[in-house]
Amino acid sequence: MYAIVMAGGAGTRLWPLSRRGTPKQLLSLTGDTSLLQQTVARLGTLLQPADIYIITSQAHVRATQDQLPQLPPDNVLGEPLARSTAVAAGLAAVLARRESDEVALVLPADHYVSDEASFTEALRQAAQAAERGYLVTLGVVPSNPATGYGYIKTGAQLHPSSATALIERFVEKPDAETAAGFVADGGYLWNAGIFVWRTYVYRQAIERFQPDLARALEQVEQVHRTPGWMTRVRDIIEAVPAIAIDTGIAEPAAAEGRMAVVPLEAGWSDIGSWSALLEALSAATGADLVASGRHLDRDSHRVLVHGGDRLVVTVGLEDVIIVDTPDALLVCHRDRAEEIKPVLDEIARTAGERYL
Amino acid sequence: MYAIVMAGGAGTRLWPLSRRGTPKQLLSLTGDTSLLQQTVARLGTLLQPADIYIITSQAHVRATQDQLPQLPPDNVLGEPLARSTAVAAGLAAVLARRESDEVALVLPADHYVSDEASFTEALRQAAQAAERGYLVTLGVVPSNPATGYGYIKTGAQLHPSSATALIERFVEKPDAETAAGFVADGGYLWNAGIFVWRTYVYRQAIERFQPDLARALEQVEQVHRTPGWMTRVRDIIEAVPAIAIDTGIAEPAAAEGRMAVVPLEAGWSDIGSWSALLEALSAATGADLVASGRHLDRDSHRVLVHGGDRLVVTVGLEDVIIVDTPDALLVCHRDRAEEIKPVLDEIARTAGERYL
Repeated sequence: MYAIVMAGGAGTRLWPLSRRGTPKQLLSLTGDTSLLQQTVARLGTLLQPADIYIITSQAHVRATQDQLPQLPPDNVLGEPLARSTAVAAGLAAVLARRESDEVALVLPADHYVSDEASFTEALRQAAQAAERGYLVTLGVVPSNPATGYGYIKTGAQLHPSSATALIERFVEKPDAETAAGFVADGGYLWNAGIFVWRTYVYRQAIERFQPDLARALEQVEQVHRTPGWMTRVRDIIEAVPAIAIDTGIAEPAAAEGRMAVVPLEAGWSDIGSWSALLEALSAATGADLVASGRHLDRDSHRVLVHGGDRLVVTVGLEDVIIVDTPDALLVCHRDRAEEIKPVLDEIARTAGERYL
Repeated sequence: MYAIVMAGGAGTRLWPLSRRGTPKQLLSLTGDTSLLQQTVARLGTLLQPADIYIITSQAHVRATQDQLPQLPPDNVLGEPLARSTAVAAGLAAVLARRESDEVALVLPADHYVSDEASFTEALRQAAQAAERGYLVTLGVVPSNPATGYGYIKTGAQLHPSSATALIERFVEKPDAETAAGFVADGGYLWNAGIFVWRTYVYRQAIERFQPDLARALEQVEQVHRTPGWMTRVRDIIEAVPAIAIDTGIAEPAAAEGRMAVVPLEAGWSDIGSWSALLEALSAATGADLVASGRHLDRDSHRVLVHGGDRLVVTVGLEDVIIVDTPDALLVCHRDRAEEIKPVLDEIARTAGERYL
């Protein structure tokens, strides 16, 4: 068994902490270590460091190696350019040269989990189903009718004594009413983008659903480590369109009854925004004020303060997110954290690219 | 005619911009110039620079001179220690050595006025009443039933064609219900702490209501500019209790029919807190978002951003005050700006004196 940690994110939604040079997975958002370091540490109960691979953009290879000194440097794989998750997972499997019958855990580098034991147990169950030939995903038991995630409709259980089930279908991000119906129904899980499969099962799925990608990966296999191979790989990958695992592999596989899902209840969050971080850390700590850095408060609620060396004083705030960095400060209503993106366009236009 | 600008304030309520070393009147809160500079500029239509005196603590004499290069340096008078307004105004009158029949305009250095022409006209009318022997104050026509100011109950007009009236009595800061009654009544004005009188009329009032202070001022007059006089003045003033003009002079004078008031409608604010600054600048500009420094906003309302070089981005905020300084950041609900004071005690205890 080995893991492929997908560290390709840009993470503009966590501006001003995340910038082009320091994407989300390299940031310490939930403690003293980065999300990437926590993801790798979480895998430590299942895998040896040599069995953990990171695939990231070539620009971030060095910073990633620096954060993970326990890994062999070559386990940090540089992606020549971003072509979404199905391509990255396939490329990583080829570059890692693992045995084709080994189980691969494919998971994002930038998620948060408060209950690590439950998370590990879910991965174990997923590996068992993967060994029986299924493409497996972890599906998060919804804590609320979120509209920011895709949903998974579960089907029949694989075995009466196991919670692992077939996937009936994937559902796009729903509207609020539909999401409420899903949660009431109980048969729906959030799609967390975490996958487990035998290497050759994934390659077969690529062959079946994305034949162009399959051919590209064969070409990569042929040139790998030959003279000038990195330029060749770049050319090969450049010709491939971006393909996400969800839509390009998992959805058609589910339609053919080849996808299984393990329910996950582990305080999971994708930390897709500052408000998601506040929600995740509030749930983990039971406090409605979440603060880091030098901070003093008087009677604030549902507030996130991500600070550093400067003294931050908050008084009587409700539903506010404060992110303090050396050159830029964000103060944002909790429910409007998603609106950072259009503001970033304006920042680029008016305040300058150096803030991005 | 001459002016005594009272610049003795500490201004902790405008933390973190105001600190021990930089009190409120030296700060640029409402534009590119400080409140002190604006106060002096406002007097420029009535007085020559040589006729404008500033009285401030000795620690701030140098910074005050630096901000007012147009004044003779000796017009910045150093108060040996703070003994409230009646003492400061009396001391300044002695140290300035003006003729006893000249009219003195006595006004705080740290107020804001949006309509300068109306302010000047009110001072002119006050000077006319002062020439007739009254102790005169400007009373602000209330824009709302504020509970943060003392009120002035007006009595009979001095002259049918003039708005200047006798003062019936001064009223302490009222509760909300009482304040609403005052505003509905129409015969009440805010006490703004701005006074106009002939020098000898004020000295006579001190003689009558504060005989100890009168004796102290005579002693100061005797030692003024003799060898070692500054130490002597310090000793004399140290023995005097703190006396405010309002309670120590104006209230008893009003009871004897010697106080007059000129109504002031000039967009006045004492900027007693960050929320007062937001209110004053919103009223002056018609905008409910007031920002300085490098700032970008998306859909925020009733928000004050006092920034500097760092980029401040606000999204979807309501009723929030943001004050960004190099070593400390305040984010505060608009209605709770008064609660900075207890927080400052905690800052001194936990984060350190260097933030004060």
